[in-house]
Amino acid sequence: MDVLVAYDVATDDAEGRRRLRHVATICLNYGQRVQKSVFECTLNEVQYEQMKHHLVETIDASKDSLRIYRLPARREGYVEHFGQNATVDFDGPLVV
Amino acid sequence: MDVLVAYDVATDDAEGRRRLRHVATICLNYGQRVQKSVFECTLNEVQYEQMKHHLVETIDASKDSLRIYRLPARREGYVEHFGQNATVDFDGPLVV
Repeated sequence: MDVLVAYDVATDDAEGRRRLRHVATICLNYGQRVQKSVFECTLNEVQYEQMKHHLVETIDASKDSLRIYRLPARREGYVEHFGQNATVDFDGPLVV
Repeated sequence: MDVLVAYDVATDDAEGRRRLRHVATICLNYGQRVQKSVFECTLNEVQYEQMKHHLVETIDASKDSLRIYRLPARREGYVEHFGQNATVDFDGPLVV
């Protein structure tokens, strides 16, 4: 199945920034980053449950938000993209 | 139809911050904020085209990213939410 993962992690302290890095790393293991805090993943049911388990264990439910959407089975046409390329590596080195 | 709108707006200058506010305002006119830069909207085709037009006119395609997903028709079960309440008013006054 195709799923979309979107998160807001509260980064007002070092612990929050650590959670943000951890959440991003988990998502990178399962899918493709399309925006700073949005990933698209093609998963089977086992991978889906694994990813969800890791994410839920990582976030602070009292501060962060995690939403996982199941996308329509037919990939064509369910998303329209405008603007900057979706495959930017936001975790990569910043080259000025 | 139910759609999800997700955006990254480059806010490294005042113009970017203006675009960010404008994009958020457009989305608020059409749907419900569920994360800082993620909205869910229930729209007919006309509203969908209007919203898309306004958003595409507002973003800077060389700097920003906008993705609009059509969600499955059957709302139940397509999203799982964990953590903080989805209906926070991120634009509201900050009460400490």
